[in-house]
Amino acid sequence: MQNFVLENPTKIIFGRDTIGQIGPETATFGKKVLLVYGRSSVKKNGLFDQTMDSLQETGLSVIEHGGVRSNPVLSHAREGIELAKKERIEVICALGGGSVIDSAKAISAGALVEHDVWQFFKGKKSIKKTIPLTCVLTLAAAGSEMNGGMVITNEKTDQKFGTGNKLLHPNVSILDPTATFTVPPNYTAYGAVDAIAHILEFYFTTRDPATPVQDRFMEGLVINIMESCDRVLINPENYAARADLMWCATLALNGWTAAGLGLVGFPMHMIEHSLSALYNVPHGAGLSVVVPAWMKYQAEQNPTKFSQFAERVFQISAKNDSEKASAGIRQLTGWFHKSGSPTSLAELKIPVTDIPNISENALKLAKIWRLRDYDQKMIEEILLLCADS
Amino acid sequence: MQNFVLENPTKIIFGRDTIGQIGPETATFGKKVLLVYGRSSVKKNGLFDQTMDSLQETGLSVIEHGGVRSNPVLSHAREGIELAKKERIEVICALGGGSVIDSAKAISAGALVEHDVWQFFKGKKSIKKTIPLTCVLTLAAAGSEMNGGMVITNEKTDQKFGTGNKLLHPNVSILDPTATFTVPPNYTAYGAVDAIAHILEFYFTTRDPATPVQDRFMEGLVINIMESCDRVLINPENYAARADLMWCATLALNGWTAAGLGLVGFPMHMIEHSLSALYNVPHGAGLSVVVPAWMKYQAEQNPTKFSQFAERVFQISAKNDSEKASAGIRQLTGWFHKSGSPTSLAELKIPVTDIPNISENALKLAKIWRLRDYDQKMIEEILLLCADS
Repeated sequence: MQNFVLENPTKIIFGRDTIGQIGPETATFGKKVLLVYGRSSVKKNGLFDQTMDSLQETGLSVIEHGGVRSNPVLSHAREGIELAKKERIEVICALGGGSVIDSAKAISAGALVEHDVWQFFKGKKSIKKTIPLTCVLTLAAAGSEMNGGMVITNEKTDQKFGTGNKLLHPNVSILDPTATFTVPPNYTAYGAVDAIAHILEFYFTTRDPATPVQDRFMEGLVINIMESCDRVLINPENYAARADLMWCATLALNGWTAAGLGLVGFPMHMIEHSLSALYNVPHGAGLSVVVPAWMKYQAEQNPTKFSQFAERVFQISAKNDSEKASAGIRQLTGWFHKSGSPTSLAELKIPVTDIPNISENALKLAKIWRLRDYDQKMIEEILLLCADS
Repeated sequence: MQNFVLENPTKIIFGRDTIGQIGPETATFGKKVLLVYGRSSVKKNGLFDQTMDSLQETGLSVIEHGGVRSNPVLSHAREGIELAKKERIEVICALGGGSVIDSAKAISAGALVEHDVWQFFKGKKSIKKTIPLTCVLTLAAAGSEMNGGMVITNEKTDQKFGTGNKLLHPNVSILDPTATFTVPPNYTAYGAVDAIAHILEFYFTTRDPATPVQDRFMEGLVINIMESCDRVLINPENYAARADLMWCATLALNGWTAAGLGLVGFPMHMIEHSLSALYNVPHGAGLSVVVPAWMKYQAEQNPTKFSQFAERVFQISAKNDSEKASAGIRQLTGWFHKSGSPTSLAELKIPVTDIPNISENALKLAKIWRLRDYDQKMIEEILLLCADS
């Protein structure tokens, strides 16, 4: 196990009928609230009204900043920052999934500085203070509700960049599984794939060969994500299944699994970010294509950990590590496919002839994330494995 | 999954060569420190000097309060409270295992009130504020380094009582696995059993029949505790094994596994507390006797969860739940025994004729902890199962 510092100050309020607590919780940080949300779905399913009612009944003054799209864009975050500055916002409330929460985080950091918020993402400036943030989560996927990360797409430069800081942890996040009852099957599956991808980035990229405590925690999460997603896809209003899936997605990226792993990379995300940035595919759908290809590529180099994964997650027994690894990757890919998540570039309607362009874009992020093992050729080889499922 | 609120503000600094950070970390809370510690071992193994040097080099003024014994007693905590009041202590630093940290917690709460600290344990008063607390952990066992619980024995009334409060979370805990290199084999095993017992209390007493996420997390921890303890017993200076064991013991009782389980009881601890209070047996040794007996008693009533435990932790396949459950309990008991931890009252030199007296003592705690299912007859029956291993 590697040395680590772990500090996660986010207060989680989890369960049924908890959304009404957003007003009192938000009020502990200030009176003037910026309510950040997405598009029409939260107005249709009643979550907007529940949140707004609770904020207003607590006596808070609410300014709205709606319209965050999936793969949230910089221009919209910048508008939020201007609004927060103009209105002297004291606390931000995010109602949505990872895209909304990440936009709210960008606003919470950007509204307290004079320079442009993109400087944080380019690593030119570091975050020193943020406006307090509360969340009502509506999608089991990104994990942003309990971590200090955020990802934004600069739509002018086709760059999807992320950054992290302890101060970006939400102060309070409300996780009511019923808020995800109306998430359609494909987005439910993309969310599950996203959460699995987060775990696999840690699981397979740690350079510590001995992380048994974290390994078993992560293997358990992957099993639970698949099982709970299966149950949700049969009955979208299965509370227990929605609850398991929601909590697993949070645990996948809240720092608990990663503690002790040392330096890890996010190579699958590095490649996927280019798919999202260039083609605006849903993040989970893009990962669903990249993850199997990346696993195949890596397992050929070193099958040991992939073999352990196959054995413990899918109970695969085979003659050797290499066979076990391959069988495990096939099982996982099969599960993605069965759940309605794409497993090839073809399914995303991305032509193979675009691969040089995608890899060129991805390489920029590889450099920023210091994924030194990844040159353009290697990224192209992985993308070629994405061509067919 | 049941509704829950999760908030764990403790900052964990984990790893090699981290003890030197105790000075700077402690200094963020004040200048006048009460250093709480146990008996001679920390002076012999150099941990006292390392801690004291770091505190003093940071310019802190240190008052000592040593001599905490295992199963820490109320009188000694009261002395610490008087000292903290007299010296106007601003921050407390605990150097030790659960006993020392729990004593420090009692002082941190008791020094800020006029009434006696035992009122908190009797549930007559609630904790409203505490003196900040930093810890250097020296034993993988109790989990007190990352939770809001404390247990103290009132040696005049033979009562070993515990209480919990969010404010009792240490502000910072330093977990350096090398600090446990000199823990002798028997106490290493008792610590492992203590951590396993914490997990099993959650695992088997939750009334929610469907907690798959938490179940797999807990099963993984039990496997890892046994595996890492085995490695430590072969080589006490195996860093990786000490690290795995230390982190597992913290995770066993830091709220992560329990989140979503709803109301749980601590019946095994309830019974063990009487063994510690009446005979001053090490807490983990007492649990090592009570756990198998309690499991046998409960598995007879409802073997389902015990069967799952046997299957997933020990890969036991048997015809029916009942057989699987029994085989799992035998395996666990065998592991306790093999590790040098007692599995019968006889090994603790407690005569069977004392059972009525022990159960009478335990019943008092059962009432305070609201373990309503437990009457004196039932506690006696479990204790009778403790008679022989």
